[in-house]
Amino acid sequence: MLLFIFTFPIDSKTSSSYHSFMIKTGIIGATGYAGQELVRLLAHHPEVELKYISSRSYEGITFNEVYPNFRNSILEKCVSMDVAEMAEECDAVFLALPHGLTFPQITDDILKKTVVIDLGADFRLKNPEVYRQWYGLTHTNTELLRKSVYGLCELHRNEISGKSLIANPGCYTTCSILSLTPLLKNKLIEVSSIIIDAKSGVSGAGRSLSLGVHYTECNESVKAYKVAAHRHTPEIEQELSLAAGEDITINFTPHLIPMSRGILTTSYANMLTDTTEDELYRMYKDFYKNEPFIRIVEPGNLPETRFVRFSNYVDIGFVTDKRTGRAIIVGAIDNLIKGAAGQAVQNMNIRFGFNETTGLQNIPIVP
Amino acid sequence: MLLFIFTFPIDSKTSSSYHSFMIKTGIIGATGYAGQELVRLLAHHPEVELKYISSRSYEGITFNEVYPNFRNSILEKCVSMDVAEMAEECDAVFLALPHGLTFPQITDDILKKTVVIDLGADFRLKNPEVYRQWYGLTHTNTELLRKSVYGLCELHRNEISGKSLIANPGCYTTCSILSLTPLLKNKLIEVSSIIIDAKSGVSGAGRSLSLGVHYTECNESVKAYKVAAHRHTPEIEQELSLAAGEDITINFTPHLIPMSRGILTTSYANMLTDTTEDELYRMYKDFYKNEPFIRIVEPGNLPETRFVRFSNYVDIGFVTDKRTGRAIIVGAIDNLIKGAAGQAVQNMNIRFGFNETTGLQNIPIVP
Amino acid sequence: MLLFIFTFPIDSKTSSSYHSFMIKTGIIGATGYAGQELVRLLAHHPEVELKYISSRSYEGITFNEVYPNFRNSILEKCVSMDVAEMAEECDAVFLALPHGLTFPQITDDILKKTVVIDLGADFRLKNPEVYRQWYGLTHTNTELLRKSVYGLCELHRNEISGKSLIANPGCYTTCSILSLTPLLKNKLIEVSSIIIDAKSGVSGAGRSLSLGVHYTECNESVKAYKVAAHRHTPEIEQELSLAAGEDITINFTPHLIPMSRGILTTSYANMLTDTTEDELYRMYKDFYKNEPFIRIVEPGNLPETRFVRFSNYVDIGFVTDKRTGRAIIVGAIDNLIKGAAGQAVQNMNIRFGFNETTGLQNIPIVP
Amino acid sequence: MLLFIFTFPIDSKTSSSYHSFMIKTGIIGATGYAGQELVRLLAHHPEVELKYISSRSYEGITFNEVYPNFRNSILEKCVSMDVAEMAEECDAVFLALPHGLTFPQITDDILKKTVVIDLGADFRLKNPEVYRQWYGLTHTNTELLRKSVYGLCELHRNEISGKSLIANPGCYTTCSILSLTPLLKNKLIEVSSIIIDAKSGVSGAGRSLSLGVHYTECNESVKAYKVAAHRHTPEIEQELSLAAGEDITINFTPHLIPMSRGILTTSYANMLTDTTEDELYRMYKDFYKNEPFIRIVEPGNLPETRFVRFSNYVDIGFVTDKRTGRAIIVGAIDNLIKGAAGQAVQNMNIRFGFNETTGLQNIPIVP
Repeated sequence: MLLFIFTFPIDSKTSSSYHSFMIKTGIIGATGYAGQELVRLLAHHPEVELKYISSRSYEGITFNEVYPNFRNSILEKCVSMDVAEMAEECDAVFLALPHGLTFPQITDDILKKTVVIDLGADFRLKNPEVYRQWYGLTHTNTELLRKSVYGLCELHRNEISGKSLIANPGCYTTCSILSLTPLLKNKLIEVSSIIIDAKSGVSGAGRSLSLGVHYTECNESVKAYKVAAHRHTPEIEQELSLAAGEDITINFTPHLIPMSRGILTTSYANMLTDTTEDELYRMYKDFYKNEPFIRIVEPGNLPETRFVRFSNYVDIGFVTDKRTGRAIIVGAIDNLIKGAAGQAVQNMNIRFGFNETTGLQNIPIVP
Repeated sequence: MLLFIFTFPIDSKTSSSYHSFMIKTGIIGATGYAGQELVRLLAHHPEVELKYISSRSYEGITFNEVYPNFRNSILEKCVSMDVAEMAEECDAVFLALPHGLTFPQITDDILKKTVVIDLGADFRLKNPEVYRQWYGLTHTNTELLRKSVYGLCELHRNEISGKSLIANPGCYTTCSILSLTPLLKNKLIEVSSIIIDAKSGVSGAGRSLSLGVHYTECNESVKAYKVAAHRHTPEIEQELSLAAGEDITINFTPHLIPMSRGILTTSYANMLTDTTEDELYRMYKDFYKNEPFIRIVEPGNLPETRFVRFSNYVDIGFVTDKRTGRAIIVGAIDNLIKGAAGQAVQNMNIRFGFNETTGLQNIPIVP
Repeated sequence: MLLFIFTFPIDSKTSSSYHSFMIKTGIIGATGYAGQELVRLLAHHPEVELKYISSRSYEGITFNEVYPNFRNSILEKCVSMDVAEMAEECDAVFLALPHGLTFPQITDDILKKTVVIDLGADFRLKNPEVYRQWYGLTHTNTELLRKSVYGLCELHRNEISGKSLIANPGCYTTCSILSLTPLLKNKLIEVSSIIIDAKSGVSGAGRSLSLGVHYTECNESVKAYKVAAHRHTPEIEQELSLAAGEDITINFTPHLIPMSRGILTTSYANMLTDTTEDELYRMYKDFYKNEPFIRIVEPGNLPETRFVRFSNYVDIGFVTDKRTGRAIIVGAIDNLIKGAAGQAVQNMNIRFGFNETTGLQNIPIVP
Repeated sequence: MLLFIFTFPIDSKTSSSYHSFMIKTGIIGATGYAGQELVRLLAHHPEVELKYISSRSYEGITFNEVYPNFRNSILEKCVSMDVAEMAEECDAVFLALPHGLTFPQITDDILKKTVVIDLGADFRLKNPEVYRQWYGLTHTNTELLRKSVYGLCELHRNEISGKSLIANPGCYTTCSILSLTPLLKNKLIEVSSIIIDAKSGVSGAGRSLSLGVHYTECNESVKAYKVAAHRHTPEIEQELSLAAGEDITINFTPHLIPMSRGILTTSYANMLTDTTEDELYRMYKDFYKNEPFIRIVEPGNLPETRFVRFSNYVDIGFVTDKRTGRAIIVGAIDNLIKGAAGQAVQNMNIRFGFNETTGLQNIPIVP
């Protein structure tokens, strides 16, 4: 008989289950790629009623006209609401907005009424000065910044459960931090030697039109961009520094590759000791032993983005190079799921005491 | 509040639901693309226990080594079993084998013990002489052929529920037949004028290696193939003839395009009357009014394969051309779901009296 | 020893060859995809000096900043000039502008000074009423329209050589017309039965930003668009009517597929006689026997867009279906070369008495 | 008037130029991807007659049946010849064979009769012991190995002109070595700190069928492979050590991305001094000031593979990161041109005293 070690079957929301215990949710910025993935995940989530889909650009337009994959599934029109309005009626509000638009809206009063899960960048960086340096804006809501939690579920689960303002991590950052944290916690690598070379599918650039993501400008080509200047850098450094117990500066280089979904990070670090791949494997397995969404790939294999596609999984594998004394760690996620909407749902699950995997248990899809 | 007209949330299979009422199933040919989709769909199906995964090529190898997307989900090894062996222990056996390998294996005795759902071609053509012409083989199991049902759910639902041998339709055929049947049933088109120009993603060619589907031989190119000679032609003709009440001969031209999934059929027919798009829309909506998986696209819009991707939906739209008097009907499916594994599950649901949409209710995924 | 039946080696333009006999040329609308291909082709053309690159959007910007593939090759800035200005200094002016912008600019005076080769639609349709119907504009330059020639080189070569206003055909039209003309000239098909189902790469949509050609909106999907309404339809009808000697109305259905370059047309027509593929092959070979850019594919094979990519070739193949009495004709071109810039150069070669293949002799490139 | 600083127009081979001074050439292994690019480049080369196309797998088959893009261009059949036979009649013989098949065939006698340009790996590594370690074979032709030259044209031009056995470099290696050599020659980086993270299109894997390059197994995904174990590693180390004047060990990580052509290398190194991007730019420009095929990209821009596609160019750009003290150097080539067939032609040009750019002057093609 087949064993199912992970209870992957997707949860049910039958009509009979529309009971009074379902939480009410709303999404602001629902027509971006991360937003529409949230719509899809919440529509399938058995503990959730999706009450409002807000989109300034598409106000008054049926959501399934914007995204016809939702034909027959979601028949409501997009509304245009702000957080304060949604907070009156929703138990949880998700924001998927460009940076700078969220922090001015959030108040203590709102957080008393609802849980805010912010998929944008405004509450990710604990140090407002770092925010100013990388985003060019003065953060004027530093009090709530202090009360927020960085919602990387695997590392901050306990804090998340008590917070009403959850900063959902970036896509590159989730993959990078989860790949490297075990090495830093175990003091296995030189902290100044970390280089992260990342490759992303085009959906990471969002749905806004720009020449760089015009089909014929990025198909059949690869490029590096924002080298040494990408805004996910300080976010990765913040969390890796926390793991290491000291300040870390890294190199982070994103690349755009011609596919729709997926992020692969290839990280390099000098090892402090002569550690074999088998030892690393056991260490990683142990470090993440209770994590339903992290899969450590056996030595001899490496992650590929297709094997996590459309799922909340993080696949991590590694090679150790005796010749150079370096570890090469490869991580893979779906940038719109674990890198955005899926992790937001995971944060909601933690915060509301649902089973953490609820609504996120689907097997990745190939080909 | 949002309305959900279709109960799309995916069904649950929690550990508590492993009850005695679940049916036992097995798959033969599980490591092809259709086979592995069946594994995925059955693994998520709340009424089903997936007991055996059989693959001659990968016998003894863990299924998730063959398809690492199943890491943590399916831990069993592939076995090598035939239908007769599986019939002893399974309520339903799915076969995903090349033509010619299935018909010699099936016996009345097997069909007394289990329900056979055949994803291959051996029991699709009612006329063994037509089978011989197109497949070059003499069908030696014509008695069971007569007892089998052509499992195009929307058109043969009633028969399916009483049969133990269900011939799951081909991918091109499903999309073509469902697109054209309402026109023929309503005598709106000239039966001799039907031309179907189809476009398929590469997964339709399967996982066997061949130069034509080597990445660099089909990327950035498009071609027609097996023009006027594709084996799905007689299958389409059989069902369209049934719908029309007379023998129909068609042109069917498949094309290979550089994407992984999806089939689009563009069908042409001379209209017998001057029918507007709005009239066609209402007629199609009415014809398929009880069908959960068929979505008729409003005039002014047309199906795109991305909007049905990874789902069991069939999207159908049309244009009428007053200048030429022709109707152009466009259909879209996911070739591995409604065109293979999803329809097989739908057949199982019908046959075993489950809700027909169970395990198939997921919203299509973009981008 | 190898035989080279076609003198394909690309022509030379060494510094010594910058002689007084080179013609001076300019391009208006040079930064669209067709425009930049013209830049490339003319830069390689041994009989041509490319004097002006005009682009309103990029005036003052170095061309190789707009298209960095031209680094080290073209160092000039884009200018902003109109036809009248260029006519003063150029022997030939190429226009690659949206429809409606060209016809108001052209005058008899300009045509006395220069040869205008228009890659846009303004002078393609001989009947201004048809132009009005399909483009929604009143053509106010019908006198010059009468003096212009439809520059489909293989069919209008003799006229082209004496004209100063050459309307370069559309991409879909070139492939469609050349595929079907021999059948019509030889009265082999029913003229009312023609259906053309075309598939195009995304570059056909140009470089202007729009959601439909955003990478993540067209990757991994296929759709039909402008069904029974595409503006290339009347252009095809005009030329096929000419070939048939009677008015022809057709169905033309374009599709967008996820690749950068190439057009494949699959055309259907009822045969009037029982003609074999071998007979068709000989007829086509004979019809195009003096055409350096047309390759008739032997029965048993069919064109694929990759085999003409980056070249001026048109590949044509066919299947005859005895069951239905139809011929299926498949044509393939590179939409930016034979479908735009390459044919414009071919027109220039004809008009100026150069060898017709000069600058266009490169072998297609795979993979 | 437009300036052409590089005499890019492609050279002519008109029928009149088939003079007695053309050299005779042959290709062994002509039906692989690099081989067929050589056929194409040599067919266009004005100083060359392509006399023999040898392919063991396709002996007796017309070359344009194997590669129909050559229809009308190359009409000869493939022969099956070895180097010794070709040496009798050819001035230059190109070999594009798997490693281990070339070194046993080459003799002093052959090298007296012809120039051998080997696109395989057998004569690239100067140290036979290193060859044994990475390729698992004992090199039995070490005498000729000593007499051979490593044909990276920009670095070994003078040696190449006097040698009869030229080892054409690998694709990854060409891009990596040319990107990093100026930094090492100028002692600007820590030699032990070099990490090269490379991304390749699928054509780099060749035309042999394997599951990893089956369309549906590599489309829409990215993976690292042969991490710390790729055979191009020692080749890069050999040349970088030469540049540095000391032994260098590096990390090299190749990745497979879903596109047909192109290599991008992103290299990391610790800078020894505080050098600005402008200083690096001037240094690189100066270092490669006489190189027609190397384009240094101005600070603020970076190479993309599409801008070198189908050309012999190497584009190099860089970013310096003050925060970490590292230089990030990005290089781009077309893996089949500068990474294989193009460089082989460049080596031939050097060796035979032709203009080095002859037959290689085409502008890269977008989109």
